Amino acid sequence: MPEGQQDRAELLAELLVGFGANVQPGQIVAVGCEPGKEYLVRAIAASAYRRGAKFVDVGWFDPWVKRARIEHAEDATLDFVPEWYGERVLSLGRERAARIGLTGPVAPGVLSDLDPVRAGRDRLPAVKESGQVVNERTTNWSAGPCPTPAWAKMVFPDLPPDAALERLWEQIIHVCRLDEPDPVAAWRERRDVLVGAARRLTDRAFDALHYEGPGTDLTVGLLPAARWQAAAFETVDGLQHMPNLPTEEVFTTPDPARTEGRVRSTKPLVLFDGTVVSDLEVEFAGGSITELRASAGEVTFRTRTRTDPGAARLGEVALVDGAGRIGALDTVFYDTLLDENAASHIAVGQGFPFLLEDPARSNESEIHVDFMIGSPDVTVTGITAGGERVPVLVAGDWRI
Amino acid sequence: MPEGQQDRAELLAELLVGFGANVQPGQIVAVGCEPGKEYLVRAIAASAYRRGAKFVDVGWFDPWVKRARIEHAEDATLDFVPEWYGERVLSLGRERAARIGLTGPVAPGVLSDLDPVRAGRDRLPAVKESGQVVNERTTNWSAGPCPTPAWAKMVFPDLPPDAALERLWEQIIHVCRLDEPDPVAAWRERRDVLVGAARRLTDRAFDALHYEGPGTDLTVGLLPAARWQAAAFETVDGLQHMPNLPTEEVFTTPDPARTEGRVRSTKPLVLFDGTVVSDLEVEFAGGSITELRASAGEVTFRTRTRTDPGAARLGEVALVDGAGRIGALDTVFYDTLLDENAASHIAVGQGFPFLLEDPARSNESEIHVDFMIGSPDVTVTGITAGGERVPVLVAGDWRI
Repeated sequence: MPEGQQDRAELLAELLVGFGANVQPGQIVAVGCEPGKEYLVRAIAASAYRRGAKFVDVGWFDPWVKRARIEHAEDATLDFVPEWYGERVLSLGRERAARIGLTGPVAPGVLSDLDPVRAGRDRLPAVKESGQVVNERTTNWSAGPCPTPAWAKMVFPDLPPDAALERLWEQIIHVCRLDEPDPVAAWRERRDVLVGAARRLTDRAFDALHYEGPGTDLTVGLLPAARWQAAAFETVDGLQHMPNLPTEEVFTTPDPARTEGRVRSTKPLVLFDGTVVSDLEVEFAGGSITELRASAGEVTFRTRTRTDPGAARLGEVALVDGAGRIGALDTVFYDTLLDENAASHIAVGQGFPFLLEDPARSNESEIHVDFMIGSPDVTVTGITAGGERVPVLVAGDWRI
Repeated sequence: MPEGQQDRAELLAELLVGFGANVQPGQIVAVGCEPGKEYLVRAIAASAYRRGAKFVDVGWFDPWVKRARIEHAEDATLDFVPEWYGERVLSLGRERAARIGLTGPVAPGVLSDLDPVRAGRDRLPAVKESGQVVNERTTNWSAGPCPTPAWAKMVFPDLPPDAALERLWEQIIHVCRLDEPDPVAAWRERRDVLVGAARRLTDRAFDALHYEGPGTDLTVGLLPAARWQAAAFETVDGLQHMPNLPTEEVFTTPDPARTEGRVRSTKPLVLFDGTVVSDLEVEFAGGSITELRASAGEVTFRTRTRTDPGAARLGEVALVDGAGRIGALDTVFYDTLLDENAASHIAVGQGFPFLLEDPARSNESEIHVDFMIGSPDVTVTGITAGGERVPVLVAGDWRI
């Protein structure tokens, strides 16, 4: 373990357990991770038990075992996932558990030489029941980054391994505001800015958003009385938590039937299975994807968007201002948690019905895949029901 | 990864998957392991999928997370285990899955400085449902050793780390008969010897066994028509498998009410949680432990034997001849799978009801802990219902 990593891991664990997931005495705490993240998992377990957790249930996912499946298994079996994977997640909801997920690739490119159609068939470590539990708001949860040597090498390929890991740690510490004297106070302050922007967007009740920039001319229809949300979630029992740490986004769930035009991604995205999708360009008509291209990961991404009818429609639209700490670094992290918070983004797949007056109008899918479409060169304009155009984000600054 | 480890891992994986567990096309394959055993888990997954497995479900257990619990958790919570741990195991039985477990400590002594009473409260990674599934014979399963640097250092503390791991691999390869031109043929031959001894012991229908040696004068009562078993198990569906690889033992389940005398363990044993129990001496009266001493691990072992009434009574009695490959090495592996197969042993806790004419007479417990009591200095004599004394094992040689 590099010098200082233990101290940093304890800082990060405290933030995720005490503030992010806001673990309560007596709770079960589920942790999702991959081999290579043991040091942070153990710091999280210690922090959770110190706060009175009843049990820490670590769920490991090994992308190399998934590779073995894709390489060798019979084609007809590739969709199968044992029922107890989903039942565990539903049980966590029933038990009102806390959940903590650790992002950051541990095996970049581990599937990249395999048949991408086979690679897209099971969606592990994601299970569809996770979306249900999120929407029922029965668990207080948080996802945060976990530095690993493999990730550091991917982000800083020109640095020696130790220096790359050190640089990654420095940036993670910075974007998690752990370099502040009181990180939790700093997060409360930023949260209030984001929650304020969300409230104003909700109050404006735009009928649509219009994105304009290089390769992008996209209109996303919004639903009547849709709520915008940011940073802080609350469970059905009133427990505040921060689903993402870091977070810089303000988001809602759009009208799944009214996305029109084309959009160019502004950053690569890394799918759960490690596939990197680069230079993605997508065209929409009548709400659905009609065409897509990418210089890498195209077939895997297309397979995902064909999982079910909702997988080709938008479930999320999110705005990120230029004041966040991630975009300013200009680092491509190859990790959606960080990269999506560097820029405005949209997601195909499962929406957030709890943000709608009529939850039945939210998009439904087994998948949820974010991709980044914002940059200082992309202007976002709100369109009112009366057709008025209102600047929302220009050169990264809020105009509302 | 040390040179040659990948090749050796593939050999070992093939033996465990193809012969040990005897994985069938279409089966779910559950693998139990700890962080540090990834290289072998991945080789097992590849081997299983090549044989047509439907899904490989890896269950990880991290002893350092258990340490965090014992260090920090509220006392009242320490027995709690989420219901889905046991339900998964029962589902594996219902699904007629294959199961593979990997032995060998990854974190020796990780719990040794903690309160042993707290350490004994949950029995993870063991769950009581595992015993049920074994007894229902619904899964084809095998446990085999997985070399790791931490284990090698424990077994060969005087060697440099690389040499220790190399020596451990050499011995594992040897005791698994992977240095034979045809390991499976070699195992079939050894299996037939052991199965033959088991059949003769069953036919003799002894009323008791008498152990005599340094510190040992123990009589273990046997039940009428109890079957002795060795090496090969068969599932309810008739699928042959080898529960342990390597295996050198011939065993039955004794009368839980008729163990009398005292016994001195001839090798240390390592509990599932990593606690090492050394120089154990146990006294029995009326079938139950009345007194025990150990130079290390005494309190943890005593706590285990008080888990439930059956935890202080015998569930297994096993004989190991001197022709096996493990005893000849004279290595203490600090791993029950290997060490128990070096010497005759007994186990407190759960018995094997399927070996009895009247299954209700088998010992019942949530635990099953083996300890080694055999050596060339320990003589085993069979006592018939008529009181005749028949030599069974003398200086490590079968006499029946």
